[in-house]
Amino acid sequence: MESLRVALLSDPGSRSYPIHIGTDLIGRPELYRPYLGGGSAAIVTNDVVGPLYLPSIRKALEGIRSTEIVIPDGEQSKSWQTLEKIFDALLAARCGRDTLLLALGGGVVGDLAGFAAAVYQRGIPFVQVPTTLLAQVDSSVGGKTAINHARGKNMIGAFHQPLAVISDVSSLDTLPERELRCGLAEVIKHAFALDLPFVEWLEANIEKLLQRERGALTYAVKRCCELKAAIVAADEREAGVRALLNFGHTFGHAIEAGTGYGTWLHGEAISAGMVMAAELSLALNLIGKPEVARVRSLFRKAGLPIAGPALAPERVMELMAGDKKAAKGKLRFVVLEALGRAALRGGVEEDQIRRAIVAAAQ
Amino acid sequence: MESLRVALLSDPGSRSYPIHIGTDLIGRPELYRPYLGGGSAAIVTNDVVGPLYLPSIRKALEGIRSTEIVIPDGEQSKSWQTLEKIFDALLAARCGRDTLLLALGGGVVGDLAGFAAAVYQRGIPFVQVPTTLLAQVDSSVGGKTAINHARGKNMIGAFHQPLAVISDVSSLDTLPERELRCGLAEVIKHAFALDLPFVEWLEANIEKLLQRERGALTYAVKRCCELKAAIVAADEREAGVRALLNFGHTFGHAIEAGTGYGTWLHGEAISAGMVMAAELSLALNLIGKPEVARVRSLFRKAGLPIAGPALAPERVMELMAGDKKAAKGKLRFVVLEALGRAALRGGVEEDQIRRAIVAAAQ
Repeated sequence: MESLRVALLSDPGSRSYPIHIGTDLIGRPELYRPYLGGGSAAIVTNDVVGPLYLPSIRKALEGIRSTEIVIPDGEQSKSWQTLEKIFDALLAARCGRDTLLLALGGGVVGDLAGFAAAVYQRGIPFVQVPTTLLAQVDSSVGGKTAINHARGKNMIGAFHQPLAVISDVSSLDTLPERELRCGLAEVIKHAFALDLPFVEWLEANIEKLLQRERGALTYAVKRCCELKAAIVAADEREAGVRALLNFGHTFGHAIEAGTGYGTWLHGEAISAGMVMAAELSLALNLIGKPEVARVRSLFRKAGLPIAGPALAPERVMELMAGDKKAAKGKLRFVVLEALGRAALRGGVEEDQIRRAIVAAAQ
Repeated sequence: MESLRVALLSDPGSRSYPIHIGTDLIGRPELYRPYLGGGSAAIVTNDVVGPLYLPSIRKALEGIRSTEIVIPDGEQSKSWQTLEKIFDALLAARCGRDTLLLALGGGVVGDLAGFAAAVYQRGIPFVQVPTTLLAQVDSSVGGKTAINHARGKNMIGAFHQPLAVISDVSSLDTLPERELRCGLAEVIKHAFALDLPFVEWLEANIEKLLQRERGALTYAVKRCCELKAAIVAADEREAGVRALLNFGHTFGHAIEAGTGYGTWLHGEAISAGMVMAAELSLALNLIGKPEVARVRSLFRKAGLPIAGPALAPERVMELMAGDKKAAKGKLRFVVLEALGRAALRGGVEEDQIRRAIVAAAQ
C-alpha cells in the first residue's frame, strides 16, 4: 500500500488527510477505524458496485451501527431527487453530525455523496472509497462535490474535504473496459497539463495500464494524486492554477451537454476536448504540429476518441458560452504552452476557437 | 451608522467582513459598491419586502446588470422547490461565479438565499440585507444558511460567510408587531446566555424597543452582533461555545415541529423554550427561583409566550430526540449557570427534562 497526505492550507488547524492506494484495501478495518469515533456510519453506493463490495465493507465496519443507501448506477443519479433520498435515509436512521458517511463507488457516488455530506446538517465527516479509475485520480483530491442541473453539469455543489481516501486498485478488475479508458483520459490529462516525464512514462506504459497491471495502476493513480495535490495545495479555492486541471473540460462539457449527458462518457468527451484544446494551442502558436500529434497518438493508443461528435462548431460555441468558467461574458481556455505545461488564456477570439473545433474533427 | 467587523479565523487570509447598522442604509450605493466587481448582481427577496425596498436597492445598483428573484413570504419557502427556482433564475440570467447575490428580507430569505449562494457553482459571493429584527440579530453573524426538511428544521445547509451585512433599522418600521416581538426574543436570548449587563439594559429599555426607538434598536442590534461575533470568532464551526447560542432552541425546535412550522413563530417557540431551559436549570440546582422569575418577567414584558403549547411532555421529548443537537443518542441542553452565563450540559436525565416542561407550563 502506498500512502500520501494532502494538506489543506485553508483549514485553521492545517488539517491534512491521507490517500491510501493499493490492492485489497476495501476490507481492511484499520483504514476506517480512525474515523468512526461517532459510532455510526452511512454507506452510499450504487446498485452495481454495492453488491460487489458492500460485504467487504460491512465486515470491516463490524460493531458499528451502519446504514446502507443504494442508488441507481449512472450520471442521472447526480440529481436533486437522489440527494433527497439520501437525506431521507440519513434522517430516518437518525444519523447525527458525527455519523461518518462513506462514498463507495465511482465519480457519481463520490460527487453526490460528498455533496450530501457537505450539506447534511451543515456538514458531516466523510471518507471516499473510489472504485473507478476516474474517481481514484479525479475525485480523491480537491474536495469538489456537486450535482447536475438541467442547464449544466456540476452547477450545484460545495467544497467538502474527505477525512481519508481509500483507493483500492483491485476494485478496477471489475471495471468495464470503456470506463477504464475513461479513467485513463483523466490520467493523461494530468500528464499533458502538468508533467512531461509522466507523459513519457504513459507513452511507454499505456499497454500495461490497459491490461490492468496493478503496479502500473498504483503508480499512475499515485502520480495523478501527487500532481493534483500540489496544485490544490497552492490554490484550494480554484482562484488560479487549479483551473489548469480543467484542460479539455470547456470543450468536453460542451460535447457532453450537446450530445445529452451519458451518450459520451466524461472521459471520452474530455479526450476529444483535449485534442480541441491542443489544436487551439497550435492555432495560438503556443505549440507545434509534432506536439499535437503526440496528444492525438496517446489518446488513440488508449482507445479514446480524438474527434468530437457530429455537432456544428457554432453549437459547441453556444454551449461553451453557458459554461461556468465564463468570466464577464468572455471565454477562458486552458491551453498548452508545451507538453506538460498548461496555462490559462482569456479573451480568445471566436474564430480561433471555431477553427480549432474544425481542425480537431479532421 | 454604526459599523463593526467580524473576523473569520478559519479563513486563510484572515478575512473579515463589516456589519453596518443604522437608519436609511438600504438605498446607499457606497455600501454595495465594494462587492460589485463582477459587474452583475442577483437580488433574492420575498413578495412582502420586495415591493417596499426593491426600488431603493435598484437605485443603489444603477449601472449593474441585475436580476430580481421574488419568492413567496413565509417559512414554507425554505424548501428544495424554492431553492430550485432560485437556481433556475440564476442560470437563466447566466449568473457566473462572480455574480453578487443580495439577500433582502428576513431570516427565511437570508437562510435560503445564503444557502443558494453557498452551493450555486460551489459558492458565489453574497451580502445580507436583513429587514427584520430577528434576522438583524441572528443571521448577520455566523454564516449559517439552511433549508428545512419534512423531518426537521435547518436539516440541510452550509456555512457560508457574507461579504457584508447591511442592517437598516428603519426597515423595522414596516415590521408587523408580532415579528418585532419575535426579534426581541432573540435579543433577550443573547442577554440571558451571555451578558448580565445587557439583561439589565433590556429590563430598563424593553419599552423603547417595543416602541421602535431607532437609537435603542441600533444599540440592541449592535450589542447582539458583538456578543455573537465574539462567540463565533472563538468557535467558527460550532464545536463548542457556539452551542450556547442555542439557548432555548432544543425545546423551541420541538415546539415548532410539534405544532407544525409556522403556527408558533420561531421567536415565540424559543421564548417558551428558554423558560423551559431556565426551569431545567433550576431543577439541576444551577440557578434559583428569583432568576427564573426574571426570565419569565422579561419575556412577559416583551409580549412573548412563557408557556409552551398544549403538547404532552412525552411528545416534546420524542421530538427533541430527533433534534440535530443529539449526540450519540443522548440529549445535550444549554442551561443557565447564572443570568448571562449559559453552559452546555450533556446526559441530562429524562425525568428532569419532563419536570422542566411541566413546570414551564404552570
